[in-house]
Formats: sequence, C-alpha cells, structure tokens
Amino acid sequence: MTPSPYIKQYLMTAGPTPVPPAVSQAMAAPMLYHRAPAFGELYERVLGRLPGVFATANPVLAFSSSGSGAMESAVANLVRPGTPALALAAGRFGERWIELCEAYGADLVSHQPGWGVRIDPADVDALLERHPGVEVVFATLSETSTGIVHDIQAIAAAARRHDALLVVDAVSGVGAARLLQDEWGVDVVVAGSQKALMTPPGLAFASVSERALERARARPGGRFYFDWSRSAASQARGASPFTPAVSLYLGLDVALALIEQEGLENVWARHELLARAVRAGVLALGLELYGDPDDRSTVVTAIELPADVDGAKVPGTLRRLGITANGGQDALKGRILRIAHCGYFGAFDMLTALSGLEIALDQLGHAVDHGAGVGAAQRVFAEAGVLAPA
Amino acid sequence: MTPSPYIKQYLMTAGPTPVPPAVSQAMAAPMLYHRAPAFGELYERVLGRLPGVFATANPVLAFSSSGSGAMESAVANLVRPGTPALALAAGRFGERWIELCEAYGADLVSHQPGWGVRIDPADVDALLERHPGVEVVFATLSETSTGIVHDIQAIAAAARRHDALLVVDAVSGVGAARLLQDEWGVDVVVAGSQKALMTPPGLAFASVSERALERARARPGGRFYFDWSRSAASQARGASPFTPAVSLYLGLDVALALIEQEGLENVWARHELLARAVRAGVLALGLELYGDPDDRSTVVTAIELPADVDGAKVPGTLRRLGITANGGQDALKGRILRIAHCGYFGAFDMLTALSGLEIALDQLGHAVDHGAGVGAAQRVFAEAGVLAPA
Repeated sequence: MTPSPYIKQYLMTAGPTPVPPAVSQAMAAPMLYHRAPAFGELYERVLGRLPGVFATANPVLAFSSSGSGAMESAVANLVRPGTPALALAAGRFGERWIELCEAYGADLVSHQPGWGVRIDPADVDALLERHPGVEVVFATLSETSTGIVHDIQAIAAAARRHDALLVVDAVSGVGAARLLQDEWGVDVVVAGSQKALMTPPGLAFASVSERALERARARPGGRFYFDWSRSAASQARGASPFTPAVSLYLGLDVALALIEQEGLENVWARHELLARAVRAGVLALGLELYGDPDDRSTVVTAIELPADVDGAKVPGTLRRLGITANGGQDALKGRILRIAHCGYFGAFDMLTALSGLEIALDQLGHAVDHGAGVGAAQRVFAEAGVLAPA
Repeated sequence: MTPSPYIKQYLMTAGPTPVPPAVSQAMAAPMLYHRAPAFGELYERVLGRLPGVFATANPVLAFSSSGSGAMESAVANLVRPGTPALALAAGRFGERWIELCEAYGADLVSHQPGWGVRIDPADVDALLERHPGVEVVFATLSETSTGIVHDIQAIAAAARRHDALLVVDAVSGVGAARLLQDEWGVDVVVAGSQKALMTPPGLAFASVSERALERARARPGGRFYFDWSRSAASQARGASPFTPAVSLYLGLDVALALIEQEGLENVWARHELLARAVRAGVLALGLELYGDPDDRSTVVTAIELPADVDGAKVPGTLRRLGITANGGQDALKGRILRIAHCGYFGAFDMLTALSGLEIALDQLGHAVDHGAGVGAAQRVFAEAGVLAPA
C-alpha cells in the first residue's frame, strides 16, 4: 500500500515509543568498542543514572534483551522447582508471570480477578495469609493490556507483612507511573528501554535489592546470561558481562539526561496530565473508558469501542491515517483501542491521537462531533496551565 | 527559555519547511567530492528531474545560493542601466523585484496596487500598452507576505501580447501552486530548495527559456557567479560551474523523487486541500482571512488576528507551544498570522496548527470554541475523501 501523501507517521503504541531526536542523533555516532575506555565511561554514566529513575539505591542490572528477558531473570534467580510463589494477573502481562513461574516449576498460587480489574491489596494480604510459605510475589505496575496501573505501594506493604519478596514488572511503567522502589519496599523492579525510557528496544533492567540478590546467590545455577550475581559483579567492575548493545547505551544516556533535566516528578505529572486529557477527550466523544482507570493510569488509555463500529477495523483505519495504536489483545480484540502516552509524548500528540480517533470512527460509520474530543483535551491542558501562558 | 516538556517542535513557516526523514537521511551520507563520478551521476539526475517540477523543457540552472540569489540572476542577466522594465509588487517579495531592478539601474515602472491584492492582469496589459518599450516584466507567483497566489497564466498572456519577457519569482510557489511554465509562456521561473521542494535552504534555481538566454548572451558582463551562460554551458557538460552544496543535492534528489512518486498534479491538489481545510478552520473560529485568497492560495494562509488580542504576541505565544509560524511583515506586523502548508505537510499538521491557534488565542484572552477550527478542517478532509476510507 502506497501511503497517502496527506499523512505522516505517528507512533502511539506503548512500546516501542517515539525516540527523541537527540536520542536518535546520539545513536548515529560511530560504533564504539565495548572494552575501550570511551564505552567504559558511557557505561558507568548510564549505570549511575539508572537508579534515579527507579528511586532506588540498588544497583540496576542491565541486560541486552527485551523486557521479557529481565522478567525471566527475576524468575530464574528467585524460583526453583517447588518454590512457593504468588502471581497477580489482571491482564496479559500479569499472565506472563504465571507462564514464567510455571516454566521454572514454581509451586504457584495465581490470583486472577479478571482483565481490567485493579488488584485489591487486601486480596493479596488474604492470599498470603492463606499461603504463608509464599517466598516471592510477582506483580505488575502498569498492565499494558488494559491500561490499569496497580497500587504497588499497598501490594508491597502486604508482601512485607508476610515477609515475601515482591517483584514488579514495570516494563511499561518505569518513568511513566509513580514508583518509589526503596520507599515502598519493592525488592525487584524490572524495566525495558523502549517505553518511557524513550530508547529503542533492546535493553532491559532489573533493579535488585540486597535481600533479593542474597536469595539468588544462595541458589546458584540453572541460569547464565540472566544471572544476577554475574551481572552485579561485572557491573561493579565497570564492565558489561557480555557484549552490550552499544548504540542503545549511547541513546539511553541521552534519554536519561532528558528525564533528569525534566525531573522525575515532573515526568510523572506530565504523564498524568496527558492521560487525563485523553480521558476527557474520549468522554467528550460519548465513548467509555475500559476497566476502571484512575489518575494512576498514566501509561496507556484503553477505550471501549462503540457498538456500531466493527472494532477490529479501528487499528487498521488509524494505521491508514498514519497513526499506529494498539487494539485489544486476546478477549479484548475488537473491543478496545489503546492510546499510549508513555515516554516522549507531548500535548499535541494527544490532540493528534484524538483527531485520528474522531476521523477513524467517522470513517467507520459512527456519528462523530468533529473536534469535540480535541476541544475537551485542549481545555484540560489550558486549565492545567502547562502550555506556557503568554 | 527551557522548552516545556509538553511540547515538541512544529515548523509551520513558508521556508525553511519541514524536511522529510528520507531527505534528512540521504544528506547524512558520507561527503562526496564534487568532481568524482558519484557526484556527477547525482548532479545529472537532479538536473534531469528539475524541469518536471517547472513543467518546462528549459534547462533549469542551479545555484548554490538562497532564492534571492536566483532572483538576482534574472535581473543581472536581463537588466542593464536604462533597460525598461515593469515590476509588479503587491507584497514584500514583489517589492524585492523593485529593489533589485533599482540596484541594476533599470528604467523601472512599478505597479503597486497594495499588499494583499491579487494583481489584475488587465492592469498589466494597460501598463504595457502605456509603456511599449518594457523589455521585462517581473512578477510573483506566490506572495509569501500575504498568501496571495497571482494569476501568472493571464499575466504571461499580457506580457506575450506586448512582446515582453516575463520573469516569475516562484520561490515559495514551485511545487505548491499550479505553474505550467512552457504552456503559459513564462520565460524565467526562479525557485529555491527550501519551500515546497522539501530540502534545506542553500540551492536556488532559474528555469530560463531559450529566448531569455539569448537576451542574456547578447549582453555579457556585469555578473559572474550568477551568469546564466556560464551555468548553462557548465551544466550541459555535466559539471557544476562552482563548488556545489553537495549534501543539498543528495537531499534534493530524494525530495524530487518523492514529488515524482506522488505526481505533480497530486502535489498541487494536496496543497489546495490543505489550504482549504485551514481556511475552513479559521472561518469556523469566527476569524477572517487576510486579503482575498482563493483556491490558488495554496502556499500560506494569512489570517486576520482578532481585535481583542495583541497580535504582536501571537507568534511568540505559538512558539511557546512549539509551533513556529510567521506573523505579518512590515505594515502587517501584529495584524496577521501566516500558517504555511507548502512542502512536506499533511492533514494532521493542519489540525495541529489549528489546535495551536485555538490554544494561543485562548491564552491571549480571545474567547475560543475549543475544537471548532480543528473539527471544521477534519470535515474538509473527510468530505474530500483523501484520508483513505476504511
């Protein structure tokens, strides 16, 4: 299909996300040898910057892999055949914890209250009460499949009360949704480069507490590439344990500097406001939000598609408008549209996404009040006063 | 000023204009030696592609200069002290012809019906009747200072009737406004790389008829860098007369291929529709258009700013929103805003420009129906059916 000359490309998925020009430019620098001093300096700088984004004093272990690799590292380092574990799953990425735990032979308790639900920390408390042997709890910060951001602070408190380790998949959450690893007492936070860290896919991270690292050290073997002890020892020497994805480090260095410059609190506040503007636009169009998003749901907004359009056609219709956004996964296929605002996104991106939604729904036969969604989102930005007043 | 993290950068001036990613990428190739065969091939290909955009069989002479350099080439090659000439000026760029003719000592008739006016070809006819000695008429296709696109076809007919050469400044017009040089009988068309040709500034062009080239050859001297005979002879040998702006040729080659791929008629139609959508959005906001734009005014839309805002603040307010657009020049300073849609622009760019206008006017205290302008423009695109239906 020849693209229409009337359209440009707008990437509105929750990963990969748009890469800031300064990051792309940095990655175009000549290739570095990963044992040369120039890479050593870059590596140390990136490793020094990462803990700030996790709000932790932990070393953040870096893997050249996708986010799922870092998720696997948590299971591979903490779960043996027969290890009692609890997995919280209210969407597709929560279910990945179940798959991983099963692959590693955990004695697994699965809590699956249904997609779109926000996990109730009281349920976690009750489950740990009923299963006192559980050593590790696996949870999700931002459930990308539904847009729900879970209350990790309260879940962490429940895990602490029962002396279980808490591992959080924050692949799409880190840098987009409020997370204070040390203050909340989260043992392990897993993340990826390609979401709110504004870098192409290929790097993944595990921010590991000393307590979790000790647990892993006490049970060696059964893993190699994702072994935390090896990574931690190598990083402490300023060397990558394996050949690192060099250009991604060049990019991530710049992306982390952008986050530092904006300030993490401001970054979170921006994500909150972008999400609020999208929700206002969606509601102004007479549409409904999927599940029960609140102000925490800052990563991706899931929208219930109206009954009079063939929902399965919405992503393709948007794609022909140049807008790449996700539909629903699994049972939600054809039922929802997900608009991401995680990473390098600004106000006009949201207005473009809403314009695209208005045009797409109109094309699919739904009666649309053109401009109503965009106008409502404009008013949210205006009231917040974030678009510098004159 | 630290830019707001809520905003990205949107270039909406009528030159330089946004550069397509494929053009930027081509310009990042390793530097070529301009006498090496690889540059020779590139040069021939670009020179072979240029006449298509001018709808001419003329050689298109290329200068490494800004557009004003190519304008000067026309005066330097056609005007001597005492040469009778007629300059048509209804805006700042028309007035540049007057300045150039005066600098070269022309015996000048100036026709200045006022900014924002579309030149009446009957007036040109009457002036040439009254001044039968006029050898050259200087006109403007797209008057960037007012948004008006002049009726060059009818002006050319008048010039032909009186056996005068017609030189047209199409710096912002070529590739954005309908122009059929040979069919209309225009002797010289001057253009630049940085407008609808979607390439950074630095290359300028003069498409010169054989009749105009002969006139220049008959009166040598008084010019060197911009001498048409030297350029024509050198280009005919496949060599640039001076060191060319190599990377700009790399970019222009790709940009011209994009125009060929879209098709020049389609490119013009796209500009017409983008302009129509912007006009509809402006009117839906209760604003007025400056001057008397019609379907020809496809390069830049000039908007009368409402009396209740300080018009001088509009460009700065937009700039803080990340949108770079021009205010008025000279007497129009503070009175108009100009939104460009010339070159690499698509539908969502216009929606962004209108969102920005809505937000900026609201910030400056004007009552705005948020989304009304965007919605009206969306409807223009929907009715035209150019955004591929499902």
